[in-house]
Amino acid sequence: MSQKPLPGFRDFYPEQFAERAHIFETWRRIVRRYAFQEYDGPPLEPLELYTQKSGDEIVTQLYNFVDKGERPVAMRPEMTPTFARMVGARAQALRKPVRWFSLPQLFRYERTQKGRLREHFQLNVDIVGEADVLADAELVSIAIEIMSAFGLTDRDVRARVSDRRLLNGLLTHLEIAESSWPAVYAVLDKLERQPREVSAEKLASAGLDAATVDVVLGFSEVDFATIAARYGEAPAVREHVARFRDYLSHLDALGVGLWIRFDLTIVRGLAYYTGIVFELFDNVGEFRAICGGGRYDNLLKSLGGTDLPALGFGMGDVVIGELLRSRGLLRSNASPLAFWVAQAPDTADAPQTALRTATALRAAGCVVEYALRSQKLDKQLEAGRKAEARAFVIVDPSAADGAWRVRRAGHEDQLFTTLDALCAWATLHHESTP
Amino acid sequence: MSQKPLPGFRDFYPEQFAERAHIFETWRRIVRRYAFQEYDGPPLEPLELYTQKSGDEIVTQLYNFVDKGERPVAMRPEMTPTFARMVGARAQALRKPVRWFSLPQLFRYERTQKGRLREHFQLNVDIVGEADVLADAELVSIAIEIMSAFGLTDRDVRARVSDRRLLNGLLTHLEIAESSWPAVYAVLDKLERQPREVSAEKLASAGLDAATVDVVLGFSEVDFATIAARYGEAPAVREHVARFRDYLSHLDALGVGLWIRFDLTIVRGLAYYTGIVFELFDNVGEFRAICGGGRYDNLLKSLGGTDLPALGFGMGDVVIGELLRSRGLLRSNASPLAFWVAQAPDTADAPQTALRTATALRAAGCVVEYALRSQKLDKQLEAGRKAEARAFVIVDPSAADGAWRVRRAGHEDQLFTTLDALCAWATLHHESTP
Repeated sequence: MSQKPLPGFRDFYPEQFAERAHIFETWRRIVRRYAFQEYDGPPLEPLELYTQKSGDEIVTQLYNFVDKGERPVAMRPEMTPTFARMVGARAQALRKPVRWFSLPQLFRYERTQKGRLREHFQLNVDIVGEADVLADAELVSIAIEIMSAFGLTDRDVRARVSDRRLLNGLLTHLEIAESSWPAVYAVLDKLERQPREVSAEKLASAGLDAATVDVVLGFSEVDFATIAARYGEAPAVREHVARFRDYLSHLDALGVGLWIRFDLTIVRGLAYYTGIVFELFDNVGEFRAICGGGRYDNLLKSLGGTDLPALGFGMGDVVIGELLRSRGLLRSNASPLAFWVAQAPDTADAPQTALRTATALRAAGCVVEYALRSQKLDKQLEAGRKAEARAFVIVDPSAADGAWRVRRAGHEDQLFTTLDALCAWATLHHESTP
Repeated sequence: MSQKPLPGFRDFYPEQFAERAHIFETWRRIVRRYAFQEYDGPPLEPLELYTQKSGDEIVTQLYNFVDKGERPVAMRPEMTPTFARMVGARAQALRKPVRWFSLPQLFRYERTQKGRLREHFQLNVDIVGEADVLADAELVSIAIEIMSAFGLTDRDVRARVSDRRLLNGLLTHLEIAESSWPAVYAVLDKLERQPREVSAEKLASAGLDAATVDVVLGFSEVDFATIAARYGEAPAVREHVARFRDYLSHLDALGVGLWIRFDLTIVRGLAYYTGIVFELFDNVGEFRAICGGGRYDNLLKSLGGTDLPALGFGMGDVVIGELLRSRGLLRSNASPLAFWVAQAPDTADAPQTALRTATALRAAGCVVEYALRSQKLDKQLEAGRKAEARAFVIVDPSAADGAWRVRRAGHEDQLFTTLDALCAWATLHHESTP
């Protein structure tokens, strides 16, 4: 039998699982504070759920097949179509705005390379039914508070934000023909990674004159104050500048203003996003985007007939895990072993008193282990040390001074004459499981 | 777009997700106290991982296909092969006994009917590397403590236990030819559901004489004391009776003796189990088995070359969910909305003070929501009531007697002059998220 998982798939041994659980628990803890409710859908869905949104090209990237009932199906490559389906099915009954999140495992058949797997877990946070820019501010603040909860600061991560409506307004004001916008978007998207001359050439061949080419190339460095000063009164731009100013003001009030960088080169999916978009990056530029999202007001209607404004983001477990590991911040949520219960040998009723002891300590919420066979005391204690027990309880019903002896490194032994007394002490002195 | 999931697959809307989360959290809380560590593997595995264990017949029940790299693959129908693969790959390095658990989603293409889905989640708890019967006692006690944590008692659920070695010893003692054992097993497995005459006929045609047929048919009612008294000194039976007596004594010490019923008709997978086996059932007999497991000492060797004794059980989320619902015990783990923050209208800096308030309360661990657009105060309060907020914070920076007013049903309004004072009070009076 092969001892390996499929290429691009991960085994989570307990050490890796405890790191994944730390990421999941941090995600859930923060998102719940924002009054989002968790949902989940099937990891296998009808294939058309994905081709309807992304076209037939997506099939080359899918784990798709025909099931035994002759249905074309696919393992989910993203959560949004399932989310749209579920919201669409109950659109009338759901309280608005819908505030939902999910932690699905997603699957894509991609070429495997460093940091590129064929499965990952992705936090999905979405708001449906609110067009106001305050919802956009709330959304990105969640992603940033998650960074903060992981121990990252605004020196480690920044949120690059743009607004598709503002950008479109600028392109209109610059008198760039709408037919050239896709080319301009494509250049902006690559502005950081592509030589300036190549970008300039592409803009020129899209029909932009030399002066306009320079303005667009300048979008990679321009800050919001400059845009506001230069174009804030232009008719095609005015309302979008005002809205974005409100957005930034809300972000300050939400306490995340220092993390924000205005960046017109943040484009994201062309057919998908309609308003404010954002991506989170590490400040060093060492990793791919940690998180991306924005407003997609038309998508639900185009997918499910539910005409509601919507916005959301996705954050995968792989990039954030790599970033946290590189910063020494990837914690483990493993429950430490509170007690190893050992039975003194040659007592009449052993192991029964040891078992009763373990049961009582567990009922008190403690993590407890003991040897699952009869062993001499020194072998039991050695096994407990290997299990990294924080404390030992040595049970000896024949001991005159107390049948329960607690031994901890750096402490005097403590003796207890009743199991109740031991459990009361354990409850006070040892973390119990939640 | 279809608004339904595939047949046999579930959408988990927030209400259903909160019930699933209650089941998951109870599973994890109890199993962790027993010092088990959580692991996970890929939901997609090489097809041969399953055919090697179960033969080619299993393929008719699988979600299997050929991936884009020409690999025959299957969505996991059970966790044990992945577990065996993972343990096998690190068998030398792992501390023994291995105590691992997992909560995988599993997939089978079965005919859908009431309570039969094509996916479910299954708690898997396994111990590897310990042959002693104390490990068997520890294992079933976990399953029972889980029942107890759900609020079920020994009046609701019983654990039916048997031992394949004891049964084989009895068949040997009764001089039943080993070639007839599979037929005897099959009859025992169906003894409760099949007319007595049919069972008798099948045993007779397997070669058993009339007296032996009567003895075997009596196995459905015989208790352990009777077996011990009748066969306890027979050479083929003696050691197995002694071992089982130790098992029962351990279970008493572990506090779960009252839940146990000796039941020789518990057979489970023929090719799989080698020792003590058990199933948990509701006492009314209303539902299918809640949980099943036992000792499978030869399986790891046959799968992966790791010759280690092992035992484990699986408990699905569907049957336990149905049982808990029928008993009024299916809780929800949804986080209630602690505060709805409303801004008094017509104040100069609203909504900024409201946003700062929401941020501060969230930083204190509280679940907080507010209107994501400007609204009159009465509309905001109405939205908060629909969201079932436990308390309102009405923010009015111009109020002379305190900018933060806390309103709760059945209480006088409370006024706070600083945000710090409000947060200190909130931390004391409102459950924060973990």
